[in-house]
Amino acid sequence: MNEITVQTKSRTAFIDITPAIQQFAAEQGMKDGVITIFVPHTTAGVTINENADPDVTADMETVLDRMVPWNGGYLHGEGNTAAHVKASLMGSSAQVIVKNGQLQLGIWQSLYFCEFDGPRTRKIWLKESA
Amino acid sequence: MNEITVQTKSRTAFIDITPAIQQFAAEQGMKDGVITIFVPHTTAGVTINENADPDVTADMETVLDRMVPWNGGYLHGEGNTAAHVKASLMGSSAQVIVKNGQLQLGIWQSLYFCEFDGPRTRKIWLKESA
Amino acid sequence: MNEITVQTKSRTAFIDITPAIQQFAAEQGMKDGVITIFVPHTTAGVTINENADPDVTADMETVLDRMVPWNGGYLHGEGNTAAHVKASLMGSSAQVIVKNGQLQLGIWQSLYFCEFDGPRTRKIWLKESA
Repeated sequence: MNEITVQTKSRTAFIDITPAIQQFAAEQGMKDGVITIFVPHTTAGVTINENADPDVTADMETVLDRMVPWNGGYLHGEGNTAAHVKASLMGSSAQVIVKNGQLQLGIWQSLYFCEFDGPRTRKIWLKESA
Repeated sequence: MNEITVQTKSRTAFIDITPAIQQFAAEQGMKDGVITIFVPHTTAGVTINENADPDVTADMETVLDRMVPWNGGYLHGEGNTAAHVKASLMGSSAQVIVKNGQLQLGIWQSLYFCEFDGPRTRKIWLKESA
Repeated sequence: MNEITVQTKSRTAFIDITPAIQQFAAEQGMKDGVITIFVPHTTAGVTINENADPDVTADMETVLDRMVPWNGGYLHGEGNTAAHVKASLMGSSAQVIVKNGQLQLGIWQSLYFCEFDGPRTRKIWLKESA
């Protein structure tokens, strides 16, 4: 298992981690398999979406805020319930296929670390399966 | 890695791809393992849900439309922000266990390709892990 | 493939299954790999979220109810459309890394079985990959 670190700079952010995952595959000498990308946090997640127009992830942040408002009369005393819910909506892990050492993503796809309660220093765990 | 193609015929649709995944397992001669089903698009996803009553997936399309309306004052110039968000809500990949060559799904479960910005010709990538 | 059983006691509930998954890893003699946790039901799912304050999962149930109300004028005759949609929002499977025989989760993370149409007796399927 390997670990990478991401420093987020705002409460919410979608950060493209594709180059770090490709580098992991190369360092492992992976040829063919599946990489599990796991986020060990409860107010952050991971998703795959468009990398061409940054308005797409900006819109995703907006839509998630509308679906799960920060202030919602929640019970949780820390006040970041919305971040927890968004983390589960995006999910804690992603799986990507590797073929001939190359990450297999669609032409418009990138892997995004999703920060929902930053700014924080975050970890991402990576594991290859044959 | 293998690829299958799905032709969608409307803007949104849930298409049962279970037979194609079972066929993949058979062709690979898989006995026991896990199949990763990966959608290389940013306005489509994959999910597992009920196959008995088609009203279930019809309702899912309705609920997702209510949660993420097509017209929402979004920034993204292509106008299909809702499709991008729904893709991340459903997810880009699914994992299914194979045992003795058989896909292991619950009695009411099927694997659905989720089209959110069709009609289009779509790809699905498949990879087995031991 | 192994199976564990969960008995739920209310319509919705988030039940911590982490100890059962750790026990599975120990019984398999797993050292390093990935466990796929698969829910073979269409009105229940699995997610990873905070285990410290039970208000977090209570809030998650509340937010999901707001996003997908039980009564929504749905087509599906069984009347449990909301449970089906929530199952797909949380997802049917989770992946967790195992290292030196230990489940790798963040300090605040637990694995939750998500009941959305209980009370019922439910199954969870587990499969390790090397």
